[in-house]
Amino acid sequence: MDVLEKTDAKQVLPLRAPILMNPAEAEVIRALRRQGKISRTEISNITGWSKAKTSQEIRSLVEKNYLVEVGKGMSQGGRRPGLLRINDRLGYLVGLDIGATSIDMALTDVAGKILQRRSSPADVRQPPDEFLSRCSELILEMVNAQGCHHNQILGIGVGVPGPVDFTRSVLIAPPLMPGWENFQIRDFFQHTFPAAYVVVDNDVNIMAIGEQRAGDGAGVDHFIFVKIGTGIGSGIISNGKIHRGSIGCAGDIGHICVDKQGPICRCGNTGCLEAVAAGPAITEKALQAGRNGSSALLRQMMEANGGILRPEDVNAACREGDQAALEIIRASGQMIGDILAGLVNFFNPSHIFIGGGITNFGNHLLVSIRRAVLQRSLPLATRHLSINFSQMGPEAGVTGAVALAREYLFVVEGQPFFTV
Amino acid sequence: MDVLEKTDAKQVLPLRAPILMNPAEAEVIRALRRQGKISRTEISNITGWSKAKTSQEIRSLVEKNYLVEVGKGMSQGGRRPGLLRINDRLGYLVGLDIGATSIDMALTDVAGKILQRRSSPADVRQPPDEFLSRCSELILEMVNAQGCHHNQILGIGVGVPGPVDFTRSVLIAPPLMPGWENFQIRDFFQHTFPAAYVVVDNDVNIMAIGEQRAGDGAGVDHFIFVKIGTGIGSGIISNGKIHRGSIGCAGDIGHICVDKQGPICRCGNTGCLEAVAAGPAITEKALQAGRNGSSALLRQMMEANGGILRPEDVNAACREGDQAALEIIRASGQMIGDILAGLVNFFNPSHIFIGGGITNFGNHLLVSIRRAVLQRSLPLATRHLSINFSQMGPEAGVTGAVALAREYLFVVEGQPFFTV
Repeated sequence: MDVLEKTDAKQVLPLRAPILMNPAEAEVIRALRRQGKISRTEISNITGWSKAKTSQEIRSLVEKNYLVEVGKGMSQGGRRPGLLRINDRLGYLVGLDIGATSIDMALTDVAGKILQRRSSPADVRQPPDEFLSRCSELILEMVNAQGCHHNQILGIGVGVPGPVDFTRSVLIAPPLMPGWENFQIRDFFQHTFPAAYVVVDNDVNIMAIGEQRAGDGAGVDHFIFVKIGTGIGSGIISNGKIHRGSIGCAGDIGHICVDKQGPICRCGNTGCLEAVAAGPAITEKALQAGRNGSSALLRQMMEANGGILRPEDVNAACREGDQAALEIIRASGQMIGDILAGLVNFFNPSHIFIGGGITNFGNHLLVSIRRAVLQRSLPLATRHLSINFSQMGPEAGVTGAVALAREYLFVVEGQPFFTV
Repeated sequence: MDVLEKTDAKQVLPLRAPILMNPAEAEVIRALRRQGKISRTEISNITGWSKAKTSQEIRSLVEKNYLVEVGKGMSQGGRRPGLLRINDRLGYLVGLDIGATSIDMALTDVAGKILQRRSSPADVRQPPDEFLSRCSELILEMVNAQGCHHNQILGIGVGVPGPVDFTRSVLIAPPLMPGWENFQIRDFFQHTFPAAYVVVDNDVNIMAIGEQRAGDGAGVDHFIFVKIGTGIGSGIISNGKIHRGSIGCAGDIGHICVDKQGPICRCGNTGCLEAVAAGPAITEKALQAGRNGSSALLRQMMEANGGILRPEDVNAACREGDQAALEIIRASGQMIGDILAGLVNFFNPSHIFIGGGITNFGNHLLVSIRRAVLQRSLPLATRHLSINFSQMGPEAGVTGAVALAREYLFVVEGQPFFTV
């Protein structure tokens, strides 16, 4: 009975994230995150604390249910020491990657292990409360399927396709979703998930974080993750950490000028990279090529599609050997590469990962980007530079969103724990 | 007699930098660097160590001469506690800022307090051993004037005007000083200063570090320091740390393309920022204006100078209201601003500091740069952006070089101590 009561108490624990820790507790959690499970003696060795202090800190953390005992380690002459690890079932985390036309989400334990996964079409131009209500429903479906309780959701990491004021977790002047400006995403989710700490970041930042935690970016100190789709954006890892910039809008490379005589962009300036090289520019040029007769294949596709072409169609035409489609894709790669060349000089990354809807364009795009970068960047900066498509696909964003939620689960002196 | 012997022993201490520490010692040094002087009890509170462990660590550090007792603090009920601080006279540091035509250097204590300061004209196109011998002589002059011994120099921070492989402390493919490629600067100085750890970095990086430690960049997490002179380069602070990039050549913005139809740069590409906007481009345009009659004043200056103009002359003409000179400077500012606009979108700094030989050009240059950035960057990224001349002048480089030497004085687990 006693035990059952205790278990019940754990199930509906009035725990709210972020869980504030003192530096001593944080040191234990950090060691455990790094090493999985260790004994009191090992913790004492790592921290330099006395046996008494170590025991006291551990006792307090176990009482708070943050740590659990997990069997016995190897004896070192005396009785076998009890091993400790972070209580993975302390609660659950959610990673939510909001795209212009889709939602990707995952429910994980506090160690970031995926327990449930959902994807759904969506339209981000909906009012934010409607859109996010749908997200909450999907999260609740995962929660129910997992047999847990919505009060056990301790963190929600959210990626959104627009500029984010990271400290306030709101979008600022988002071109794709103007109705979301200043909408309190954190408050909205906390209404349904009162124990959750909600962190909102730009969609490309979470992709970069995902690439760093679980992709080829693991262990890479300096890289740029470039997302090419309807828009063009980037996420930046500097010295092993996400670089959000002074107000959180770093990485916005879509509006760097590539051609002063170019077309007017939706931002009001002329010749922005996004306006000449992203998905809509590619389809627009393809439509022109269809209309003006320079590509019979594109005209045929256009007519079959009711006068519309998608980037995928241009890609398909290219694969079938259509010269006009090939030129359009090459020109796009060239312009993206021209901008990246300057950023390579400035930032000197060792890797550029390219993701987003256009990654299935394959080698023509990639080769053009590489060629432009090699031509315009300093030899020193490109000597060991790798430019490749990200292998993570849509998992980059979700993984990064979970990592973000996990990072802010425990907070010490106002700072989240950064543990890769 | 005992005391004298002890003092003597300290004077010729066989101490070599970097001083390797274990994490426990490092924690004490870090606390003392942050707080100046503190008691054992305070150290024990900060570290969480037992009284016994604290005493033992302190005793060991005092025996090694790294710490000294400095009087008594306030009593908290018992006897007044002894205060400890880092032994500032443990040795000396040197900051050396090598420019194309000048050497700036300082001798400091290990806390970075300047004791001696020297500047000298120089020519970096000299062979490196000749050039650096001259530097060694100047350092020895300072050492002698200070009454200390060359074996007491524990660190030398060196800034050089070219790309540096930071981990190896050598220049790579330096355009201004080709003879320096791969020259072992560290070995060279250690021959004369055997106890010194030598750290070599790019000149603009040390200016950025200097601005961060002692200028308006103090406490600023994200900024770009732009040096405009014979070349154009930048130093980058991201998340409060210098960003050197994957092989140490980050910040090289002088060869970003500003005009694909522009003149050929010494790097072989066309229309590099440096080729169209730095000092030589400014004087070249001014000479043209003098020759083709579009400026009587510039012609007059040119003739008075034997057919030569320096950037300062163009500036002086501008101050006297010469329209051609003004246009040249404005055009330069516009092109620099165009490139910075893209970098502001990418990096989202809160500050841009401008330094180097051209900072005395005053408002016309600065206003043109600001205007171009405001016009081309995203409103979000410029909302709180400050663009100003650095107030540090030549002190930025020397200060940064000292800071670098200081950072690498103590090393724990292969990592230097970063303490602002």
